[in-house]
Amino acid sequence: MSSRTTVPFNRDSLEQILKRRFFYAPAFEIYGGVSGLYDYGPPGCALQANIVDTWRKHFILQEDMLEVDCTMLTPHEVLKTSGHVDKFADWMCRDLKTGEIFRADHLVEEVLEARLKGDKIARGKSAETEEEDADKKKRKKKVKEIKSVKLDDAVVAEYENVLAQIDGFSGKELGELMVKYDIKNPATDGPLEPPIEFNLMFETAIGPSGQLKGYLRPETAQGQFLNFSKLLEYNNEKMPFASASIGKSFRNEISPRAGLLRVREFLMAEIEHFVDPEDKSHSRFDEVRDIKLRFLPKEVQESGSNVVIEKTIGEAVDSGMVDNSTLGYFLARIYLFLLKIGVDSSRLRFRQHMSNEMAHYASDCWDAELQTSYGWIECVGCADRSAYDLSVHAARTNEKLIVREQLPEPVTVEKFEVEISKKKFGPKFRKNAGVVEKWLLSRTQCELEDFAAELAKNGKFNPKIDGVSEEIEITDELVKIEKVKRTEHIREFTPNVIEPSFGIGRIIYCIFEHQFWNRAGAEERGVLSLPPLVAPTKVLLVPLSSNQDLQPLVKKVSSYLRKEQIPFKVDDSSASIGKRYARNDELGTPFGITIDFDSVNDESVTLRERDSTKQVRGSIDDVVKAIKNITYNEGSWDKDTANLTPFESSSDA
Amino acid sequence: MSSRTTVPFNRDSLEQILKRRFFYAPAFEIYGGVSGLYDYGPPGCALQANIVDTWRKHFILQEDMLEVDCTMLTPHEVLKTSGHVDKFADWMCRDLKTGEIFRADHLVEEVLEARLKGDKIARGKSAETEEEDADKKKRKKKVKEIKSVKLDDAVVAEYENVLAQIDGFSGKELGELMVKYDIKNPATDGPLEPPIEFNLMFETAIGPSGQLKGYLRPETAQGQFLNFSKLLEYNNEKMPFASASIGKSFRNEISPRAGLLRVREFLMAEIEHFVDPEDKSHSRFDEVRDIKLRFLPKEVQESGSNVVIEKTIGEAVDSGMVDNSTLGYFLARIYLFLLKIGVDSSRLRFRQHMSNEMAHYASDCWDAELQTSYGWIECVGCADRSAYDLSVHAARTNEKLIVREQLPEPVTVEKFEVEISKKKFGPKFRKNAGVVEKWLLSRTQCELEDFAAELAKNGKFNPKIDGVSEEIEITDELVKIEKVKRTEHIREFTPNVIEPSFGIGRIIYCIFEHQFWNRAGAEERGVLSLPPLVAPTKVLLVPLSSNQDLQPLVKKVSSYLRKEQIPFKVDDSSASIGKRYARNDELGTPFGITIDFDSVNDESVTLRERDSTKQVRGSIDDVVKAIKNITYNEGSWDKDTANLTPFESSSDA
Repeated sequence: MSSRTTVPFNRDSLEQILKRRFFYAPAFEIYGGVSGLYDYGPPGCALQANIVDTWRKHFILQEDMLEVDCTMLTPHEVLKTSGHVDKFADWMCRDLKTGEIFRADHLVEEVLEARLKGDKIARGKSAETEEEDADKKKRKKKVKEIKSVKLDDAVVAEYENVLAQIDGFSGKELGELMVKYDIKNPATDGPLEPPIEFNLMFETAIGPSGQLKGYLRPETAQGQFLNFSKLLEYNNEKMPFASASIGKSFRNEISPRAGLLRVREFLMAEIEHFVDPEDKSHSRFDEVRDIKLRFLPKEVQESGSNVVIEKTIGEAVDSGMVDNSTLGYFLARIYLFLLKIGVDSSRLRFRQHMSNEMAHYASDCWDAELQTSYGWIECVGCADRSAYDLSVHAARTNEKLIVREQLPEPVTVEKFEVEISKKKFGPKFRKNAGVVEKWLLSRTQCELEDFAAELAKNGKFNPKIDGVSEEIEITDELVKIEKVKRTEHIREFTPNVIEPSFGIGRIIYCIFEHQFWNRAGAEERGVLSLPPLVAPTKVLLVPLSSNQDLQPLVKKVSSYLRKEQIPFKVDDSSASIGKRYARNDELGTPFGITIDFDSVNDESVTLRERDSTKQVRGSIDDVVKAIKNITYNEGSWDKDTANLTPFESSSDA
Repeated sequence: MSSRTTVPFNRDSLEQILKRRFFYAPAFEIYGGVSGLYDYGPPGCALQANIVDTWRKHFILQEDMLEVDCTMLTPHEVLKTSGHVDKFADWMCRDLKTGEIFRADHLVEEVLEARLKGDKIARGKSAETEEEDADKKKRKKKVKEIKSVKLDDAVVAEYENVLAQIDGFSGKELGELMVKYDIKNPATDGPLEPPIEFNLMFETAIGPSGQLKGYLRPETAQGQFLNFSKLLEYNNEKMPFASASIGKSFRNEISPRAGLLRVREFLMAEIEHFVDPEDKSHSRFDEVRDIKLRFLPKEVQESGSNVVIEKTIGEAVDSGMVDNSTLGYFLARIYLFLLKIGVDSSRLRFRQHMSNEMAHYASDCWDAELQTSYGWIECVGCADRSAYDLSVHAARTNEKLIVREQLPEPVTVEKFEVEISKKKFGPKFRKNAGVVEKWLLSRTQCELEDFAAELAKNGKFNPKIDGVSEEIEITDELVKIEKVKRTEHIREFTPNVIEPSFGIGRIIYCIFEHQFWNRAGAEERGVLSLPPLVAPTKVLLVPLSSNQDLQPLVKKVSSYLRKEQIPFKVDDSSASIGKRYARNDELGTPFGITIDFDSVNDESVTLRERDSTKQVRGSIDDVVKAIKNITYNEGSWDKDTANLTPFESSSDA
């Protein structure tokens, strides 16, 4: 159906259109803007709302997930426990003279890339194209000038090796690389301080005292974890189940770049699927088993290759490449979702994280990456967070975040148990009694075994207890620690969490790149081939002229469309039909309905398809029905317009 | 249809249900919670999503508004210009000894109320009921104890007078009241510092340097104003038009209270309707003209009364009580929206702000207030912000935020114009030349008239210019300022803004109170009569027993409901039908479908209506059709189930 040209993709031309049609724009632009902050205008906002709506139907409704809406403001203690206060950071280097701040890994990357380019020029291999050069300027690269300097072959190889691993270096390693390769402030050649950690969370104070430190959440996940017990109860204690949340998260990037791809405030859609760690199978896996995906597993990357392996998700799980069928199920569902909203499947791959790049909470992670002019971009993460989060919050708060499961038949277990002599315990430890008791009751089996041995040997032991400054001596008069046999009817466990996490803004940008093209024979005319399901507006309604006779029909068609809840716009401006359609091609509007003077006679209208510019003619009713089926009921142009009459017109370009 | 009891409303019983069914819960509860922050669980989240969806259809789609999604992070400069940095504050008093902080107006209010109660007790008039007392404790009132002390009649009258005006006092006045009435820390009787201003915005730093100060937005409006020119262009330069935005805003309350009614992070839905200041009429006003509303205009309040006036919005606008028909149109549309989502019209009034309580940007404001057990609550503000915001941002940024309108016929105007001699101007003022020129070109006509007079008299004048430290002398060699005649074809103006602004969380809480009741004859059974349109789940699907024979039909009905996109839940737990329905009455689920053994024979099912517990029986198809019509197509039980067979059952309570 499509007649797309082979004109090479031009990012500049896409960005001009996105700006002109106000899909998005830098926030606070009349104040000079703030980097990393963008506003969505009407078409961007509608596209985003449609993608979120599709996500909600595809994931939440299909799987009966429990959607929650938790606060963005989060107290310090929660994010301290989750590890974000200590570990959610990037490395930055300061130039003490100029006050400039660089993100260390990006700086090393840019400087080495620039040197490799300079080497290529010196070798006469290939100079940079003008277009690439323009790109650089737009991206505000720190390295403005490429110097033609030939490097040793060995140095070239070393640089290339560093660049391949650039996401995996620690701050110390980055500092060493900067020394080794003499990396300085590219603008002034001045010295830089060694990399220091910069926490990426926005900090604020909650309440008037200024003493309750808080952050804007870096992910929606923590709110879901903290509500685990309430959600389990809401779900009638049934496992497995998933919660989900759609909302903004925040990341105080050191130096945002690449437009919508790296921003400081972004919309996320996250699922936390809670499973039994001993059974991570998914009951609906067979529905997706035969779907073919493109994988880039960690072994391949570690061998220095980036050649994807194509196989079915069934094969991937069976072979153990993807750890379990729940993870596998979600990878396939993510794939189906992305295709539905306009991602080009040939530019989508699932890349497994290497162990040195995994987030602090993850035990395994596959990213859905989308290919763009900026390279491959992580758009959806699908991590196995194991029991990490529930465990740390439970330990910190002494709340049980567990599942209690009726065993099919009782089992007999032997285990160490603590029996406290309450009468003596209180008077002995006084104000510390509660803390000591809690501490004793939360020891592991191994610890209890040791204490039991000590009690047997010495009649006492002297533990060090957090929050108790006094010396504590526990004697066999105060406690008994013994191995006992119990018949258990209930199994208690902390669920593991499989987390598909979507960056909606990044996905939107990638769809723009995947669906933008220029019309053959009219290369200045850009088209955004957004799928009808997510297109901001579905129909452009155009009266051929501003003649009053056409107005009643415009109203009639409008009321039909409104009744069917199909978003549409009327364009009765004086511009030519061709111009009006061209404008809407840029807006990604998939259908046009033209009302002409024949329409006044027989109430027939013309329906135009954006990508092919094909036109058909029929009654208002039939045309609206076709639009509805194609847009919302997985119909197709060929099938759903078969009953309409092909129509030739010279009005379109 | 309803058989509601006259059992008095019991807030405690409502709150227990909302908590038990996880409509919402204190955020971070396992960490002890943070006051003023709440999470929405699955039913609350679905209710919120349905209300937002209804809002979007009722306002945005109906009026072709331009929806935008702007960032919450906002740089200091923007909110300095808008006036929020200086004026968005409450008054707080510190107890230097205990470190406690009180919100001054709330403290005065509570202390005087407590004294009035104590007076009543002393007079033996009426003691507080136990229930009211429990309420107090839940609300964490500062005044824990009511002392029985009789007051002079004159003092009682004075206190009552102060309480009636409590929203209008300045910090200084509150301080004077505290001295006059000897108001101290109620817990310790210790002295309090005089009230100081506390800005209610959450502050943070954007970027790694820590030097770009920012805030979390206190309203979504500013983002819409800053994008005004882009929106006007997107709208093909047509006026009037409205933008709209749905998103979270933040307010660092000094001491949050009253549950969802006063929180620190909340969902807002705001419309900015841009109109010509010389013509604030609305083209669709006639559609709403005859709707009757309940008004509480400022004159009535200022006379000390709170008796509402009921009249049509047409009469209200015609009489000038409501300033213009755009404001009137929105008041009526707000009314229709609130009714649609479950507000009780007899507990809704429109109260006009008195001049001493208006926000700093507003020239007139009507609040839709909803009555609850906490009193009348402002849920929707409808303010005329005049040209305030666009003017201050334009002045600060030197960007024109105006409309240029083709005049129907050219007009001749006489006005003062500045002509600058560029050649001499630059060399004379050097680095200041740009600032001085900009300053000159943005003077008002009055100022220019004065300067022209000075130039004529002295040949020079010496203005003081912001941002220029040097003495500036402007002579008649450098500029000419003269009255000239011009023929103008274009009229330029700054639009005024009418702003309907909705606090979604507050509305949700009020709907809970308006729609909660207890079943006659079974008072322990609470019912939430949420309208089907916004109810979290529309249908509860209950197989009569867990017998396997019923399962195929459960699947069949499920697939019918899924196909029609009707949110439903299956409850195949072993609880009795009555219990299962009782649970769903609490969740506000309007319909139940029961599958019994007769269903297996003839595929008929029973449909139950929540409020009346009426039941009817029919085919799956007919039952689903009835549900769909009542829920989404403004149908009614009587009309849409007329074709079904009345059904008697003993299963319901």
